[in-house]
Amino acid sequence: MFTPRTPRIAAARKLHRRRDRDDTRRFLAEGPQAVAEALGAPGTVIELFGTPEALHRYAVLGRAATDAGIPVSEVDDEALTVLAETVQPQGIVALCHQADVSLDDALGRGPRLVAALAEIRDPGNAGTVLRTADAAGAGAVVFAGDAVDPYNGKCVRATAGSLFHVDVVRGPGPVEVVKAAQAAGLTVLAATGYGEDDLDGLADSGALATRTMWIFGSEAHGLSADVLSAADHRVKAPMYGRAESLNLAAAAAVCLYASARALRQS
Amino acid sequence: MFTPRTPRIAAARKLHRRRDRDDTRRFLAEGPQAVAEALGAPGTVIELFGTPEALHRYAVLGRAATDAGIPVSEVDDEALTVLAETVQPQGIVALCHQADVSLDDALGRGPRLVAALAEIRDPGNAGTVLRTADAAGAGAVVFAGDAVDPYNGKCVRATAGSLFHVDVVRGPGPVEVVKAAQAAGLTVLAATGYGEDDLDGLADSGALATRTMWIFGSEAHGLSADVLSAADHRVKAPMYGRAESLNLAAAAAVCLYASARALRQS
Repeated sequence: MFTPRTPRIAAARKLHRRRDRDDTRRFLAEGPQAVAEALGAPGTVIELFGTPEALHRYAVLGRAATDAGIPVSEVDDEALTVLAETVQPQGIVALCHQADVSLDDALGRGPRLVAALAEIRDPGNAGTVLRTADAAGAGAVVFAGDAVDPYNGKCVRATAGSLFHVDVVRGPGPVEVVKAAQAAGLTVLAATGYGEDDLDGLADSGALATRTMWIFGSEAHGLSADVLSAADHRVKAPMYGRAESLNLAAAAAVCLYASARALRQS
Repeated sequence: MFTPRTPRIAAARKLHRRRDRDDTRRFLAEGPQAVAEALGAPGTVIELFGTPEALHRYAVLGRAATDAGIPVSEVDDEALTVLAETVQPQGIVALCHQADVSLDDALGRGPRLVAALAEIRDPGNAGTVLRTADAAGAGAVVFAGDAVDPYNGKCVRATAGSLFHVDVVRGPGPVEVVKAAQAAGLTVLAATGYGEDDLDGLADSGALATRTMWIFGSEAHGLSADVLSAADHRVKAPMYGRAESLNLAAAAAVCLYASARALRQS
């Protein structure tokens, strides 16, 4: 049974810090859902840690790991608490390789829908948008510029497993990302409350039925003038009531689903 | 200048507790945006508190209050910190009357779109859905059953002012809310990942172009079997990718905007 002082546990706990994640290109995914999704992405999981109770309860996960040649290590409750970030960890944590791909590689696979996050710092927001992008059928999610680390624990949890479903790109700055997407044949739509195009209008005209990258800025700062002018269209979600705007998660859901629906019909 | 020991400040700070909000039917709205929206809702603001700096910076708010006969009180930084919940309060807080209406009154006004939250406990989620419902043109938002207090500070902030735009109802249990909405002529759609109807299918068939109440459950527990069977349709958002589901904020955005778009076109 591993304890907090076991060298492998001591090394893994350091992955709560971004610097150590960046240096080692590793991260931790906690809880049965994230572990199951990680195990479903070949070559991702390095080692599975669990308490005896959790490894009994989620025996299917331990078996999947063993079948894939991944070591499964029993840890005591204290070691598990050290590895997990949540207050009520569910007893199981996977040590994973970071698996992001380059922007060129992601665009080279010809995705029909891409979501880019420009300098989004909030890990919960970023993870939620990634999950929504996956649900809408996006092939890639780009973290552009000085963005949150996609392997931040809170971001990983907010993706609810979608981190392991899409191509994750830690991109260059937002303007470069826009230009690369355009060079790859994607129409770039910038989501902004001040857009000259209305989402419903684009949907009605059929303009959404094309390979698209949406780019979203933070709620506090929006997108920079450079990004807005580099994009093909600046698009606002319609405001039917008296709210001034949607929050990031809601705006991304409305925009990405409008594209998904148009692409499905095309 | 008021200090933390001023009786009115001491009374107002207690409104951070739900019990005191419930007893007094009052609450606090902090920050210039919420204060501006509160002042825009006649009869809502009882007193405006601000530091000298904030009252100088947001002089327009002080003037609007004075013009409406609402007392404006200067407080010192310490008193403001006591009134505000955020780490970086922006120096201005409004003491407000709670203004929720009964379910019968809200339904009696004939809203075309209503959002109901069934036993949602997370204030940030609830506030976000209320904001999204306002953006989608909903006339009322119902907090059904054992839900978060809509006047919880975190919920108020997440609404970004929309709390003051729509009819807020602290409803009876979710099943009663469903039946009352149906009796008022609304079609009730229950959002669930296990729905037999697909949102796109309903949109394509024109079935969304009707007066509608959406009801949403918490991400952890969903909607109860009673609520699901009482609703007219159980509807799932389409999953175009590999995500199993959307989070509450994203699901509400996709569903409410699909209805808004259908109602606009009808």
